[in-house]
Amino acid sequence: MVVSADLAVRTLGPCRIDSPLAPRLGARETTQHSVVEEDRILFDDTLSMAGARGVPLEQLPSLEPGGPRKKIYFDPAKTRVGIVTCGGLCPGLNDVIRGLVLELSRHYGVRRIVGFRNGYRGFIPEFGEDVLDLTPEVVMHIDDEGGTILGTSRGKQDPEAIVDALERLNINILFVIGGDGTIRGAMDVVAEVERRGLKVAVVGIPKTIDNDIPYIDQSFGFQTAMSEATKSIHAASVEARSAPGGIGLVKLMGRHSGFIACYSTLAKDDADYVLIPEVPFTLDGEHGFLENLRHRVQERGHAVVVVAEGAGQEHVEGEEPGRDASGNVRFGDIGRLLRRKIVEHLDAHGVENNVRYFDPSYAIRSVPANPYDSAYCLRLAHAAVHAAMAGRTEVIVARRRRRFVHIPMALAVSRRNHVDPLGDLWMSVLEATGQPVRFG
Amino acid sequence: MVVSADLAVRTLGPCRIDSPLAPRLGARETTQHSVVEEDRILFDDTLSMAGARGVPLEQLPSLEPGGPRKKIYFDPAKTRVGIVTCGGLCPGLNDVIRGLVLELSRHYGVRRIVGFRNGYRGFIPEFGEDVLDLTPEVVMHIDDEGGTILGTSRGKQDPEAIVDALERLNINILFVIGGDGTIRGAMDVVAEVERRGLKVAVVGIPKTIDNDIPYIDQSFGFQTAMSEATKSIHAASVEARSAPGGIGLVKLMGRHSGFIACYSTLAKDDADYVLIPEVPFTLDGEHGFLENLRHRVQERGHAVVVVAEGAGQEHVEGEEPGRDASGNVRFGDIGRLLRRKIVEHLDAHGVENNVRYFDPSYAIRSVPANPYDSAYCLRLAHAAVHAAMAGRTEVIVARRRRRFVHIPMALAVSRRNHVDPLGDLWMSVLEATGQPVRFG
Amino acid sequence: MVVSADLAVRTLGPCRIDSPLAPRLGARETTQHSVVEEDRILFDDTLSMAGARGVPLEQLPSLEPGGPRKKIYFDPAKTRVGIVTCGGLCPGLNDVIRGLVLELSRHYGVRRIVGFRNGYRGFIPEFGEDVLDLTPEVVMHIDDEGGTILGTSRGKQDPEAIVDALERLNINILFVIGGDGTIRGAMDVVAEVERRGLKVAVVGIPKTIDNDIPYIDQSFGFQTAMSEATKSIHAASVEARSAPGGIGLVKLMGRHSGFIACYSTLAKDDADYVLIPEVPFTLDGEHGFLENLRHRVQERGHAVVVVAEGAGQEHVEGEEPGRDASGNVRFGDIGRLLRRKIVEHLDAHGVENNVRYFDPSYAIRSVPANPYDSAYCLRLAHAAVHAAMAGRTEVIVARRRRRFVHIPMALAVSRRNHVDPLGDLWMSVLEATGQPVRFG
Amino acid sequence: MVVSADLAVRTLGPCRIDSPLAPRLGARETTQHSVVEEDRILFDDTLSMAGARGVPLEQLPSLEPGGPRKKIYFDPAKTRVGIVTCGGLCPGLNDVIRGLVLELSRHYGVRRIVGFRNGYRGFIPEFGEDVLDLTPEVVMHIDDEGGTILGTSRGKQDPEAIVDALERLNINILFVIGGDGTIRGAMDVVAEVERRGLKVAVVGIPKTIDNDIPYIDQSFGFQTAMSEATKSIHAASVEARSAPGGIGLVKLMGRHSGFIACYSTLAKDDADYVLIPEVPFTLDGEHGFLENLRHRVQERGHAVVVVAEGAGQEHVEGEEPGRDASGNVRFGDIGRLLRRKIVEHLDAHGVENNVRYFDPSYAIRSVPANPYDSAYCLRLAHAAVHAAMAGRTEVIVARRRRRFVHIPMALAVSRRNHVDPLGDLWMSVLEATGQPVRFG
Repeated sequence: MVVSADLAVRTLGPCRIDSPLAPRLGARETTQHSVVEEDRILFDDTLSMAGARGVPLEQLPSLEPGGPRKKIYFDPAKTRVGIVTCGGLCPGLNDVIRGLVLELSRHYGVRRIVGFRNGYRGFIPEFGEDVLDLTPEVVMHIDDEGGTILGTSRGKQDPEAIVDALERLNINILFVIGGDGTIRGAMDVVAEVERRGLKVAVVGIPKTIDNDIPYIDQSFGFQTAMSEATKSIHAASVEARSAPGGIGLVKLMGRHSGFIACYSTLAKDDADYVLIPEVPFTLDGEHGFLENLRHRVQERGHAVVVVAEGAGQEHVEGEEPGRDASGNVRFGDIGRLLRRKIVEHLDAHGVENNVRYFDPSYAIRSVPANPYDSAYCLRLAHAAVHAAMAGRTEVIVARRRRRFVHIPMALAVSRRNHVDPLGDLWMSVLEATGQPVRFG
Repeated sequence: MVVSADLAVRTLGPCRIDSPLAPRLGARETTQHSVVEEDRILFDDTLSMAGARGVPLEQLPSLEPGGPRKKIYFDPAKTRVGIVTCGGLCPGLNDVIRGLVLELSRHYGVRRIVGFRNGYRGFIPEFGEDVLDLTPEVVMHIDDEGGTILGTSRGKQDPEAIVDALERLNINILFVIGGDGTIRGAMDVVAEVERRGLKVAVVGIPKTIDNDIPYIDQSFGFQTAMSEATKSIHAASVEARSAPGGIGLVKLMGRHSGFIACYSTLAKDDADYVLIPEVPFTLDGEHGFLENLRHRVQERGHAVVVVAEGAGQEHVEGEEPGRDASGNVRFGDIGRLLRRKIVEHLDAHGVENNVRYFDPSYAIRSVPANPYDSAYCLRLAHAAVHAAMAGRTEVIVARRRRRFVHIPMALAVSRRNHVDPLGDLWMSVLEATGQPVRFG
Repeated sequence: MVVSADLAVRTLGPCRIDSPLAPRLGARETTQHSVVEEDRILFDDTLSMAGARGVPLEQLPSLEPGGPRKKIYFDPAKTRVGIVTCGGLCPGLNDVIRGLVLELSRHYGVRRIVGFRNGYRGFIPEFGEDVLDLTPEVVMHIDDEGGTILGTSRGKQDPEAIVDALERLNINILFVIGGDGTIRGAMDVVAEVERRGLKVAVVGIPKTIDNDIPYIDQSFGFQTAMSEATKSIHAASVEARSAPGGIGLVKLMGRHSGFIACYSTLAKDDADYVLIPEVPFTLDGEHGFLENLRHRVQERGHAVVVVAEGAGQEHVEGEEPGRDASGNVRFGDIGRLLRRKIVEHLDAHGVENNVRYFDPSYAIRSVPANPYDSAYCLRLAHAAVHAAMAGRTEVIVARRRRRFVHIPMALAVSRRNHVDPLGDLWMSVLEATGQPVRFG
Repeated sequence: MVVSADLAVRTLGPCRIDSPLAPRLGARETTQHSVVEEDRILFDDTLSMAGARGVPLEQLPSLEPGGPRKKIYFDPAKTRVGIVTCGGLCPGLNDVIRGLVLELSRHYGVRRIVGFRNGYRGFIPEFGEDVLDLTPEVVMHIDDEGGTILGTSRGKQDPEAIVDALERLNINILFVIGGDGTIRGAMDVVAEVERRGLKVAVVGIPKTIDNDIPYIDQSFGFQTAMSEATKSIHAASVEARSAPGGIGLVKLMGRHSGFIACYSTLAKDDADYVLIPEVPFTLDGEHGFLENLRHRVQERGHAVVVVAEGAGQEHVEGEEPGRDASGNVRFGDIGRLLRRKIVEHLDAHGVENNVRYFDPSYAIRSVPANPYDSAYCLRLAHAAVHAAMAGRTEVIVARRRRRFVHIPMALAVSRRNHVDPLGDLWMSVLEATGQPVRFG
């Protein structure tokens, strides 16, 4: 359970500089869409979760709101900023970079912003990566394209070498756009920054196409990704229905969490089965997945199976899961395993089958953000700039229950966000597919 | 300020029937994605809004969660259901109809569901509208199309005649999909139902393409609509930049609230000006809109103006605002007025101008829901069915801060949702366009 | 009837310079997809049109093929090129500009290419337009956007002033992208060039979103435009079917020719009526359009009407057709007239009606080229460059029956391309809509 | 070389029945868009190809035009029609089915139309496939979806069994939609029909997503397919540019012909290399593909490679090419081979590489036809119905140089359509990619 201490936000020091935005902030009132600086947002909003009966409101765990402050910590004229993108592609990366640069330069008047290339290795001299000067002109139209103009890579780098680079370039603020591995790396950087007694703010913008970072609303790019994923599910359905014994098998992203599989299935009601990491399943046996599939194919002549890449890892025998450069567990390929098992099982039972396999991950993650995500990324970037200019550090900015808030990095990496097998999302999926509550 | 009494949900009576869904509900635990039935969700979640210091949590205003109940009020085998769609088109109407029918029939086992045609007039014998039997087969693919298969119309009808129709057809549950006028109409129906001592649940699914219903997250179809709107803004920008003195003028929906104008502008950063109902502006004078526009056109050679249909109504002289069949104020056409004023002003100053006018409202509202809205509509429909089967009445189902909740109809029509001129959304718009905080 | 003399292509002089492309041309053989330079392409390919019986093949009218020549007229190192876009927007303009610049610079090695701004006025000092240097870097991604980076305008300018500008800038080749008015303007330029004894090649790339330039396959951008138009027809259909007495009325481009109306109707079979300039119709009377529409609305409850802007001009009373800056006849607005007439007629007969009017022209013409048009524009640009480098002048490049050919400008403006009321395209439209062969 | 005898169209007998369409055909004149029945269309239209000098026009090889006839062979009231789709999916199949059914039933008044399921096996009793009654209601909206509502399969079936089925169901006209294997199968059916002295017309609508059927303009679905393919090329480019040493590798359809690879590359200018079956390449050696790629990756940091599935088959060692059920050669997987070779080569040279592999074939072929293809399919279906009703048999209908014509089946399968390595399409590709004319 999250307690108040988990929610305390670190700052580099008191805010004494008038924000250039102050005139626009006016006599801000508390309304649905904005928060006053001294306000707090309850961490939980249900009676059952928010705390014990009788506890006064102000003692409940609460979050610092995001947004502009009238007083800021950094003097824009003297501030230098670095930006880095890490890990796999996700729709909206360029929108976030663009939003950061425009807000910093146009509204705060920060002059020098650099992008480090190809993830954390961009800080390390051995890799020989140059830095990219980021101006409003450079970033103005980058949101028309997917990917990241900074490039990206997986993997940690030595925090001492990173802080050396920050010192070398006189960086005062570092924005880190990445997933939980990246945020852990940023925490190491903060520790090294502190050891050296530097005043560098490190602010994270959480990126996870799988939507598995906890305590936040859907992560940026998620809606774009799930929208793209519906296309593959529908294509699989068209293929399945056009061939005798047609089976469309779609492997989607989702290493630990099946959100993309669930939402895309709800959006385009073509799937007969959804398999996700959170809900184990058996393959064999009378009540196993394969027998259930066989019956469905024999009854209807076709079937569509959606599987998240992290589902059913226990079935991926003989493939020793290693770790990739970021330390992420490397998964056995459940998609190819299922394809083989399905063919074998149906062949063994003399059931005609034509399996079409779809693996659209690269195609999904490389598209530009859709309009919703585009607007969301822009606002998230604005919130990140406000947080950093006010001297917040070791925080991520996030939208939680539709409000922009500051969440300490330690909390953000303390667990993962999962599809609740007892929750209403999964129940809607079960209802949409008609698949059994459990196999086996 | 909302108090607890405002949030009390009415029910037809105690729930004594086992839900057919109960086996799936299992030993439901309280988790992030689901709520136990007896739980409550705080209405406000900031200290400043949620209440006075020292008030214990359980005394704060709170909402009933949506979702399935283990015990329900209506016996599915004997339940007859009616569905009606009212008011203007909105992406997702067919998704909601489909979601209602599938959930009722497949999961609760309700057999007889009828759709009333063309809004409330579908209940009135004089109009001679037949009813449409709604089965899973009929609705299975209707979500591929925009519009509503039931048809729709504006305007109230006599509640007595409506309840006569409900009695004639033995309807126990009526789902009403519409905006605030429609919900007011539903409240009249509830009053008449009560006067007659009937046990009919009336549950609303709020529809507002303008996103102006209060206390809920973005209304269904809103994201689709704002995504479509970005296309017109971009087309206006292309036109403006391709002609000497090119000015793209885009009138978007938004009678009382400028959300579509704001979000679509943030998503596609092409607009120089956004004019919304919440922020008055002057046309003439040194600091008026027209002079500001003139300078921008002279400096950059082109400009893009986005105007919500309800903006600047004080300028629409000589057009007596009437009321349409639903009693909505009929607005003077600010778009055509602006077009004329811009041409006159620039001509008078000898500034070349080529104004291209876009009025994409019908094109926007008639598209199918995008995948996000499609999944959202499905889940909203599920929540509505759960509420109705549990005997809730005179409520709307809604998502508020990402949870499905029951909101009394009276509260839902007590005010409108507006863009806060002091909030962060509008501030992001000001930053994106660079327009002045105020004209005049 | 076209005779051989009409097809003679003018050249500035003999080609004596080795083409830098020659090594790639290799030992070119005559195949389906290429032509040898000395080959000719028959102008007509049916017995009935191609000529009298007994005429030997080589005496039939034939066209010069487009494509690269081994010997060229201009020395790339000394060649200066100008590009201008004129008239209304059309998808693919930027693709053509880009294709010209890339082919000239990368493959022929031409160094100096300038774009004249805003149509022919870009040549006239009074307008004060600067020229834009066009390099591969400048044009590399312009095809991602609709419109034209050069800007455009309507209207002729003084050919002497234009040639003055060509001389001032030492332009040897001028590419003119525009419609029939623009081509006529280019012919005036050629005449003035000749009067002065200059060696300037003027090559046109025909642009007509209406597809009304004769003797060529579909003009570039046409397929994109007709694809976009289907969206409006479908939206009109959704609106019509969702309202009692719903009538969707869509005005599409097509001043003289109804190709967009016809093809978009065939592609998305939602329209009940298509009205085009080539087929007159009566409004009133027992067999007029309005009565026919009334019956259809009463039978089916809704209808969709597609009207090309140039249709039924005889009905647009009281609107004196003037001429715009290009000398094009300015049309009365048949769309608004029809809207009014339909409402009046149905009201007069007591038939409920809800007319939704769509005028998507700006939205259609401003989109980027679709992949087909994009590839087509690139190849058309290549052909234009080959023609110009080989010294051809007063020609347009075009694809005729799927081959790139050179057509003298005089022939290209000698008539318009029309939908044949007795041809198979119109018959397919009649079959798809079910409308009567004639009204009245 | 094609001679007149190759172009003779077979008919079942004289046309003596008045066509129900005759009133619409009116006094048809010869115009650009229609042909009179007794007209002929020259097979070739260039001097070099069309024949020897001095040959009179009417002696040149020429084709029978497609389109409606005033007199027809079959009596609509007594005619029964079968439709079958065979081979792989292709966008537009449902459009063709729909076009056939609507034209037959609405315009000719044919009452009984059946669809055979799952290709030629739908005729064979052992497979137990039922037939599907095809009415206007059934087919009205099938064009909204990809795939084929009839299902499809590969492989020939016994022509005697097929004709048994035709006799059993009293089928007079069989429409066969498929590729060259399917057309060969149809020729066997014709032979058996004749052997039995039956009067059954067999008309083919050529389907080839690869565009490899000769003598016709682009095959239906081709433009949709190439448009979809551009998305994968662009995604590959985004991935390649976002990773150090990023290489996007896209395998596209194209067993014998690289048209999809070529056109999609021209449309979206992101590829550095295009490899097609028509142009052999070496992998190894100083001038081989791998070394060239290595240099490009080292210079630019990334590269995009597009490969048609039939390219470089000589390199796919150790994979014995078999034949699939249709007798098509089964190809070794050049995509996976290239991926392995690229990684090995770059690793061996110490060049960092991140290869992203795309295999979008199923995703491409399962989409609905785009508006262009949709209109094209409709008109092609109209032409096929006209041909069959006029008693033509053993022909395919096709568009050749933008006219609908009848081509004998034997000619249609006599060779394949290829990208000409010396033609202007391939030269445009070479120019767009900048790749060398040859590797090795």
